[in-house]
Amino acid sequence: MRKVDIPDLEDIALGAALLGAGGGGDPYIGKLVAAGAMRECGPVTMLSPDEVPDDAQLLTISMMGAPTVISEKAIGGNEYKSIYNTMESFLGKKAYALLPVEAGGFNSMFPFAAAAWLGLPVVDADGMGRAFPELQQVTFTIGGVSATPMALSDEKGNSVIFNTINNKWTEDLARAVTMVCGGSASMSIYPMDGKTMKSCAVKDIVTRCQMLGEAIRTVKQNTDKTPEENFLQATEGYKLFKGKISDVQREVKGGFNFGKVVLDGIGEDKGKSAWVGFQNENLIAEVDGVIKATTPDLICLVDTETFIPIPTDALAYGKRVMVVGLECFHLWRTPEGIELVGPRYFGYDTDYTPIEELVGRGNA
Amino acid sequence: MRKVDIPDLEDIALGAALLGAGGGGDPYIGKLVAAGAMRECGPVTMLSPDEVPDDAQLLTISMMGAPTVISEKAIGGNEYKSIYNTMESFLGKKAYALLPVEAGGFNSMFPFAAAAWLGLPVVDADGMGRAFPELQQVTFTIGGVSATPMALSDEKGNSVIFNTINNKWTEDLARAVTMVCGGSASMSIYPMDGKTMKSCAVKDIVTRCQMLGEAIRTVKQNTDKTPEENFLQATEGYKLFKGKISDVQREVKGGFNFGKVVLDGIGEDKGKSAWVGFQNENLIAEVDGVIKATTPDLICLVDTETFIPIPTDALAYGKRVMVVGLECFHLWRTPEGIELVGPRYFGYDTDYTPIEELVGRGNA
Repeated sequence: MRKVDIPDLEDIALGAALLGAGGGGDPYIGKLVAAGAMRECGPVTMLSPDEVPDDAQLLTISMMGAPTVISEKAIGGNEYKSIYNTMESFLGKKAYALLPVEAGGFNSMFPFAAAAWLGLPVVDADGMGRAFPELQQVTFTIGGVSATPMALSDEKGNSVIFNTINNKWTEDLARAVTMVCGGSASMSIYPMDGKTMKSCAVKDIVTRCQMLGEAIRTVKQNTDKTPEENFLQATEGYKLFKGKISDVQREVKGGFNFGKVVLDGIGEDKGKSAWVGFQNENLIAEVDGVIKATTPDLICLVDTETFIPIPTDALAYGKRVMVVGLECFHLWRTPEGIELVGPRYFGYDTDYTPIEELVGRGNA
Repeated sequence: MRKVDIPDLEDIALGAALLGAGGGGDPYIGKLVAAGAMRECGPVTMLSPDEVPDDAQLLTISMMGAPTVISEKAIGGNEYKSIYNTMESFLGKKAYALLPVEAGGFNSMFPFAAAAWLGLPVVDADGMGRAFPELQQVTFTIGGVSATPMALSDEKGNSVIFNTINNKWTEDLARAVTMVCGGSASMSIYPMDGKTMKSCAVKDIVTRCQMLGEAIRTVKQNTDKTPEENFLQATEGYKLFKGKISDVQREVKGGFNFGKVVLDGIGEDKGKSAWVGFQNENLIAEVDGVIKATTPDLICLVDTETFIPIPTDALAYGKRVMVVGLECFHLWRTPEGIELVGPRYFGYDTDYTPIEELVGRGNA
C-alpha cells in the first residue's frame, strides 16, 4: 500500500504512453484530470494486488472510443459518478477499490481521477499490461470473467446497462452505442472480486509504468552510456528500426483509428524501409519485408532524441522515431490470448512469433 | 372489460394490417404466436382505458427492427419474460397491465401473446393508432412521457437497459443496438401509470382494429352496395387511386425498409400514374404529380378484390391495388405531432395538409 500523489502522475503518464503502444489515448489529458482531482481531494491510496481481500468487490472505470475523439472531447464532468452508482446499485454491493482496465494510455490515469473523487483506493494491476482496442481484449476474458453487467454513460446524460452472452457481444453492442454517442463514452466493465483479479490481472503494472516513465525522464542522466542504451536497458526494449516518417495513412472507421506509418531508415538503418500498422494501437512492424514484431508484443514509436513515446494520432511527416518492441504479459502468449489479440484477429496473415525470436532471427 | 380469445385475433390482425399502413410488420405471424399463447394459457382480459386506475403501473412489450427481419426471425422464446422482469425490478413495481405501443402490424398481436403467458390484462389503447417506424413517434412523446427506462433483449440472450435524455436518443441508441443484434429485438419502453396513459394514448384502438378487420372480412356480405363501397364506408377511407404495380424499389438501410412503389392506373384511373413512398410505413401518395395524402394520415394499399391490406414487403409487380387514405388520430395533427411524424421529418419537402382537404382539392 502506498500513496499516489500529483508528482507521481508525471512518470506514470509517461510510462503509460509507452505501454499504450501508440494507442490507448494520450495520457497527458488524463494526467491533467487526475492531478485536478488530487488537488481537490488529496492523494489516492494504491493497493498491491495481494492486499485486496478475496471477497472484495472491484469496479473499473474507463473510457471507450477512438483515441482521437477522446482527446478532443476529453472527459465529461460526472459520468464516472453515474456509472459507479449504477454499478453499485445493480450489483447490490459497495465497491472496495477501483481496478484499472488498461495500463497504457488515457485509461491509466482516469481511475486515479475517479478514485480521488470517490475516496476509493486503486489496485496496482490491470487487464492488459498495455492497451488494446476492443473491450474483450483483456486478460480477464482469458480468466473467464464476464464483461457485464457493464454501465456506459455519455457526457450528455444518456446511460446504458449491458448484459451480454459473452465479452465479444459486449464489445459489439457497446461500440455501436459509443459511436452513436459521438465516438466516446465512459464505462464500468468487468466487475469482479479480489480473488478473480488475483488470478488473471497483470499485477504491479502501475508501479512498472511509473518506473518506465522515470527511466524515460532520466534517460540522459547516466552518462556512462548513451541515452539510447539507457532507454533500451531500462525498458528491456528491442530496437527494431530507426527512421524518418515518410507517410502516415490514417482514418477513423467503426469507432477506431486505423492506419499505417511508413519510415525511411536513418543512422544505422539508412537505406532500409519499414512500416508499422495500427488499429488504435500499433499491431505489426515490418522492416524490408521481414516482420520484426506483432501484437500482442508491444510496438512503440519513440522520439529519437527524447525517447518520449508518440501516440499514433501524433505521427507526422518528417518526425524521427525509433521503433521499439517490448515483450507482452505471459497470458497473452497462451492460445486463448493469441486468439483474442494475435495478428490474425486484426486481419494480418501471419502467426504470432514472440518478439525475442523474431529479432534474434532477423538480426542474425 | 372483455375477454379477447383466439377467434377475435383473426379480425384484430386483419384490422392491424390496415392500420399498419404498409408497415409495422405482418400481423399474421403475431396472430399465430398470440393464438398459441391463448391455447396454452387461456383468453386475455382487455380493459377499457377508463377501467385502469390512475396509479396502476403499465408496461409495454413490443418488437423493434425492420419488418422484413422481424418476419424472418419471428419472435424468440423468452425475451418478453426477460424484459418484463427487468422492467419490474428496475422500476420496483409490479405491472398492472400491458399497454400496446402500436395498433398497426405485428406489435398489435405481440402484447396479447405476452399477456396470455404472463397472466396480465391488456389495455384497449396504444400510442399511435397506426404504425410508425421510430421509437419516439408515439403520442406518448407528445404527452411528455419518457421512453426510458427501456429494456431490450435479443433472441440470443443479450439484454440492454437504456436511460436517455430524450426519446429521440432512445431511438438512436436502441436502433444501433438492434442492428448489431441482427436487425430485430424485443423491448419494453414507455413505462407509465394509468393517469398518464389516459391523457395521451389512443383509446379503444384494439376494438377499432377488430371492427375494421370484421368489415374487411365481411366486405361482400352487404349486397346492397359494391364490396368497394362497403369497404370505404366501414373504414371511413378515402379512395386515392387504383392501379397495377409497375415498379417496387426497396432496400433495408439503417434498420429500416425504405422504398417506393409505382402504379399504373386501372379502371377509373386508367391513364393516370401514381407512386407511394415508404419507410417501413407508407408516408406519401402522389397521383399525376399531385400529393393526395401524407403522413401522419394513413396510406394503405389493399387488394382490389379482397380488400386485404398489403404490407410493403409483400408488394410485387403486377398486383392490382387500391390506395386508401384514413384520417390519423387528432394528436398527430398538432404542431408537436407534425414535428414528430410529418412529411418533413421523413425528408419530403412538403407541409402537412389533412387528407380530407387534399382529396377535396385534388378531386374537385
